[in-house]
Amino acid sequence: MSTDLIQAIRAQSKLSISQAISLIENQREAGRTLLSNLFKYTGYAYRIGITGPPGAGKSSLTANLISAFRKEDKKVAVIAVDPTSPFSGGAVLGDRIRMTAHHSDPNVFIRSMATRGGQGGLALRTEEIGEIFDAAHFDIIIYETVGVGQIELDIIQAADSVMVVLVPESGDEVQMMKAGLMEIGNIFTINKADRPGSNKLMITLKNLLSTQTYDDAWKPEVIQTIATEETGTDELLECILSHQKYNQDKGIQKEKFDNRYQRRVNAFIAEEFHHKFWDETKKSLLQTELKKNQKDRMSPYVFTKKLLKK
Amino acid sequence: MSTDLIQAIRAQSKLSISQAISLIENQREAGRTLLSNLFKYTGYAYRIGITGPPGAGKSSLTANLISAFRKEDKKVAVIAVDPTSPFSGGAVLGDRIRMTAHHSDPNVFIRSMATRGGQGGLALRTEEIGEIFDAAHFDIIIYETVGVGQIELDIIQAADSVMVVLVPESGDEVQMMKAGLMEIGNIFTINKADRPGSNKLMITLKNLLSTQTYDDAWKPEVIQTIATEETGTDELLECILSHQKYNQDKGIQKEKFDNRYQRRVNAFIAEEFHHKFWDETKKSLLQTELKKNQKDRMSPYVFTKKLLKK
Repeated sequence: MSTDLIQAIRAQSKLSISQAISLIENQREAGRTLLSNLFKYTGYAYRIGITGPPGAGKSSLTANLISAFRKEDKKVAVIAVDPTSPFSGGAVLGDRIRMTAHHSDPNVFIRSMATRGGQGGLALRTEEIGEIFDAAHFDIIIYETVGVGQIELDIIQAADSVMVVLVPESGDEVQMMKAGLMEIGNIFTINKADRPGSNKLMITLKNLLSTQTYDDAWKPEVIQTIATEETGTDELLECILSHQKYNQDKGIQKEKFDNRYQRRVNAFIAEEFHHKFWDETKKSLLQTELKKNQKDRMSPYVFTKKLLKK
Repeated sequence: MSTDLIQAIRAQSKLSISQAISLIENQREAGRTLLSNLFKYTGYAYRIGITGPPGAGKSSLTANLISAFRKEDKKVAVIAVDPTSPFSGGAVLGDRIRMTAHHSDPNVFIRSMATRGGQGGLALRTEEIGEIFDAAHFDIIIYETVGVGQIELDIIQAADSVMVVLVPESGDEVQMMKAGLMEIGNIFTINKADRPGSNKLMITLKNLLSTQTYDDAWKPEVIQTIATEETGTDELLECILSHQKYNQDKGIQKEKFDNRYQRRVNAFIAEEFHHKFWDETKKSLLQTELKKNQKDRMSPYVFTKKLLKK
């Protein structure tokens, strides 16, 4: 592993960061070695997860937050995860355009990733890419995704602060699945708050949140925004910073870091094991089994036990 | 494992089938032993996956298909998977009510499952429950789910025939993410076809489908339905049966079966391994590492390598 690449990443060369991301995505072994070498420089960035239904204005809010953090002289990286599903209708190219104003800023890095084809490994990969940004002295890492499936939730839940973006029309959804909503969000944003129903949703949300028992824990806040007019961004920023302080004071920040560490260890072990386990003998045993009629096969469980004895 | 339970499952006792499903969900070891003993009776059922956006009418169509299959004297089991995400808004209790008319029929079994908390294991569990139904002589197993995330897609893609349910208003979604749609569906249904835009979507879909190259493969069909009036059900049934015949003639059925077998072997191995790997020594090594300041820790990859050497 070239120490040049490491130095260039730490100096925030966009080219080198892109190169590092490619390594992680395409060359597992080299990617891991790089991450190992960068590890001691990580642990500084703050991770924000932004999720919500399609069309709620997540990308516009993200763009506003980038501006707000830049005014505080914070460096910001964005990992925007586009959905797999043909039905979520979510983050398409148009949404991303709102962020492009920041592309020329050397202290802002925006990276899009697709969930398609990334079964299982995507949450890990987004964490690894976050590590690169962390080592490259980005203060803030924003994970933005349409909250539609387990993968997206995995990604978002690895963040230090989770912001759920809703619109005034989200009232029914909130009512229907309140338990799920309450669990995810540290901060709730009602975007497009100039539309009818905004105040009503605000009251509904606050009521729901007040019925939860938090025993000395963070009580989620609700903020109204109009992203296209940059209304509410300051309040949002303040809320994120206060949640960040809360996490640090209560030791939650360390807990989040430790959880990320453990998840990555477990993911590495699973990959390594899968790779070593399926040697030629075992592969050929599987082929033999598959050649039999299904009636004559061992059950998958019995067959697995046999393989494990090898 | 009591042979009584096996006999009762094969005799389609609803109580015993429920008991078997509980075993699979709550007692891994007993569940696996049961599945192993049932394995030789499986391989007969045909699996249909039904997916689509929230509110498209999947449950109503499923209810119609149950009636249609019952007229052909087929026994039908339904596994309805409800979404994890608070945003998908999908299958809530109301939807299920449409199927309850069939609950009293001894040859119909409907089972709801929630994705919440089922990370990773859900697709496997729905397959295992499918095996129970297969051994219990159900001819048709319907997997119904809102197609919103990777887990749902995993479940659906394990089916032999995949039906995507759309509504006339789905036009934009179809345009935006056509590649994803094309990959999943064997049969496309435009439900609520009495609403404006139905014919337009039909033409759009057919055009999109005709630009794909299928070299001698199944060419997806598009069918218009009005589920609440049972319009189009016969055509749908015919289409499913013709896809089933196609799968059998072309050896695709065997391929699907083999893939399910391999997936289950791999899932068992991963579970078994995870369980054995984390012995007390390794757990305590992890705790020691987590007690260090993050700077002094080994990188997750280096630490994993150390564990693997134990």
